[in-house]
Amino acid sequence: MAREAGRIKSMNSIPIQDERVEAALYEAVAMECEKVGVEKRTGFKILSSLLAESKRVQGGTSPIPRETPMQSFAKAVKLQSEGKKIIRLDVGEPDFRPPASVVNACIDALRNFKTHYTLTRGIPELVEALRNYLKSKWGFDGTEDEIIITTGGRFAVYSGLASVLSEGESAIVIDPNWPAYKQAIEFIGARPLTVRSTLEERWNPPLEDIKNSIRADTRAIVISYPNNPTGKVLDRETFRSIIEIANDYGLTIISDETYVDYAFKSCPTILNSDAEDFICIGSFSKTWAMTGFRVGYAISSKNTIDKMLSMASLMLTSAPEFVQYAAIAALGCDREARENCITMKERSEAVCDLLEKTPNIEVYRPNGAIYLFPRIKNTRIVAGEFAERLLSEKLVSVTPGIAFGAYPEHFRISLCKPKEVLFEGVERIGEALL
Amino acid sequence: MAREAGRIKSMNSIPIQDERVEAALYEAVAMECEKVGVEKRTGFKILSSLLAESKRVQGGTSPIPRETPMQSFAKAVKLQSEGKKIIRLDVGEPDFRPPASVVNACIDALRNFKTHYTLTRGIPELVEALRNYLKSKWGFDGTEDEIIITTGGRFAVYSGLASVLSEGESAIVIDPNWPAYKQAIEFIGARPLTVRSTLEERWNPPLEDIKNSIRADTRAIVISYPNNPTGKVLDRETFRSIIEIANDYGLTIISDETYVDYAFKSCPTILNSDAEDFICIGSFSKTWAMTGFRVGYAISSKNTIDKMLSMASLMLTSAPEFVQYAAIAALGCDREARENCITMKERSEAVCDLLEKTPNIEVYRPNGAIYLFPRIKNTRIVAGEFAERLLSEKLVSVTPGIAFGAYPEHFRISLCKPKEVLFEGVERIGEALL
Repeated sequence: MAREAGRIKSMNSIPIQDERVEAALYEAVAMECEKVGVEKRTGFKILSSLLAESKRVQGGTSPIPRETPMQSFAKAVKLQSEGKKIIRLDVGEPDFRPPASVVNACIDALRNFKTHYTLTRGIPELVEALRNYLKSKWGFDGTEDEIIITTGGRFAVYSGLASVLSEGESAIVIDPNWPAYKQAIEFIGARPLTVRSTLEERWNPPLEDIKNSIRADTRAIVISYPNNPTGKVLDRETFRSIIEIANDYGLTIISDETYVDYAFKSCPTILNSDAEDFICIGSFSKTWAMTGFRVGYAISSKNTIDKMLSMASLMLTSAPEFVQYAAIAALGCDREARENCITMKERSEAVCDLLEKTPNIEVYRPNGAIYLFPRIKNTRIVAGEFAERLLSEKLVSVTPGIAFGAYPEHFRISLCKPKEVLFEGVERIGEALL
Repeated sequence: MAREAGRIKSMNSIPIQDERVEAALYEAVAMECEKVGVEKRTGFKILSSLLAESKRVQGGTSPIPRETPMQSFAKAVKLQSEGKKIIRLDVGEPDFRPPASVVNACIDALRNFKTHYTLTRGIPELVEALRNYLKSKWGFDGTEDEIIITTGGRFAVYSGLASVLSEGESAIVIDPNWPAYKQAIEFIGARPLTVRSTLEERWNPPLEDIKNSIRADTRAIVISYPNNPTGKVLDRETFRSIIEIANDYGLTIISDETYVDYAFKSCPTILNSDAEDFICIGSFSKTWAMTGFRVGYAISSKNTIDKMLSMASLMLTSAPEFVQYAAIAALGCDREARENCITMKERSEAVCDLLEKTPNIEVYRPNGAIYLFPRIKNTRIVAGEFAERLLSEKLVSVTPGIAFGAYPEHFRISLCKPKEVLFEGVERIGEALL
């Protein structure tokens, strides 16, 4: 049947996939499951297996591979290894050093042979320190049961999504965004439902589109503000509206707050919101320039954290013990966090000033994060190829917009370089745009 | 239909699950898929979803939760926190210190701000050092493409299994064994097929049983020698026979060689075998007492390593950069590895001497690893409850045999304590057995 459908579609140049038909099928399966007393999850899973096999039989190819920030990274590294001097504005890794007290705490822990397995949740001292930190910072009074220390923010994202979503279900992701959310959702066998925000709308997520994209199998909304790549910070009203939608439809909000300490204006957090079901994801990587320590955390209900714990226990045991002592020290480094934020704000403003004077480019002045996401307005330039050409001709490495969604006319500049490097990079970008 | 079947089974006291019927169903689905040109994987996946839902509808409960070594660990920790002095013979964590050069390399790397993201495969210096190490140790000449440095051996186990197995497929695991293999297989949605080895047969895996357990959906055999918990090391002939079976049936061998440096006699490795498709798993944790560093590795075909890399990239990015420098140092610590092995061998022999004089107990003298797995022969003692009673009455913590398979009459003693502690522990075990 699938083969015959494929033949007819191909003859009439009809695309193999039809979103509306699929949504209707999910609705039908949900109703049928309810009627006969079968778990909806099972129905969705079988439907999604059948749809995937049906697409394969119809000659459908796998979705177009997205370029990831890591791939731009690899290209730039290759040129560097060939001896080329590249201005690297691609990597989202602060160029600061970790606070001295963090490095010292890690060294002390090593010297004291804190080199053993720990509880999967994390050493009690770190869990306690994080509780106190979140309480004094946001007024959030969570119990130990609602916390897990993770081996990097990435593992919090993956295990959080895997705790909420099953195969055949779906989650809403607001574009543009860090590609890991969609990748994790797809890895689980679930489907990312994309809602598009635009520069014209100042990167405000369209609330009606969010509501309209919810289907029978939708379980979660992923949000991440300050946003990578746009630097958008939501105003309180929009934030509240998204939470209201999630509460109304019984969805879990997954709020990745990795960049929350790089907010140039007050930034709402899920931790003091009315969200009924949420996972808050945090990381030590950006705030304290600790990317290479690989440590993060998640806050959620005991039930969800228990599921995340069982995955972490199976796959990882725990973060390295001495790294957890470094993390305790970091939580005391308020001053460094503030200074890092001020530095990024200054860079962001200075580079925006420059970009606004650059012809053929348009940029949104961000309220946070460590990136800019300008748009190319020169219609003579094939925007999608711009990043590649910029790298080969001008030796400036940026991340192409398609890494973050359907944004071929955009590219991402990481602000993780000293101002003079950023200025030189922007000058070359300007030349490449003429 | 499932509900009606459940009613009839329940009336006639027939168990819900029938292994032979399931195996026959998988065979039938495989043939049907072949006939109509549908991917077998899709068929197996849908069948396994249907079977799971059918069991649920028939009132089947989920499988009996296995006690894991981590749970024994938690019980003992709780008693300790209440001020009790416990002899901890449960944790499989060497009581040695990591080599001084390992700790120093980690500290130096921290001082030099090796605190950044690295390539997911690992820093090139570590990959190169590991290649040289495996070449000089086993004569194994792998390329960079065939190596991944993992965030602990656990992630190598999980991502290796997930690279080979899909939902609805199965893998053979030889009992008794570390529970993580079965847990990982079940997490993937696949099925562990258990083959039982026994003390009577000196823990030799029954080759005929392995062959007979292979089904249409079987993709891999997991082996781990020196074995946790038995300490068994396979002789070359048996090792070769298992590889032959795998080659004959097109199965991947997953060989976890975490304890290979604790072999008291020559121990075969998959790295210089005739295996046509394999994943070799290694760890720095046991050899150099680096459990809390969380670093391991896997060796396989480029194709499999690429799949593992994509999972590691999605979930973790990489092991901490400074930890990778510590791992480079470890690969140079041959002397410490040899000394650690000698210490464990001495402990193993001394404790076996003592156990052999203890009434009501029987023990296999291991050729490797860091454990003993004795059997209780006193028929008046409810063996399954022994570990719990030993902990509460004698304050000695061991891991119950059921953590490693259907071995309620066994328990695991970890040799990771000084001899005098081990002797005191065994004495109390003897008292509890009278």
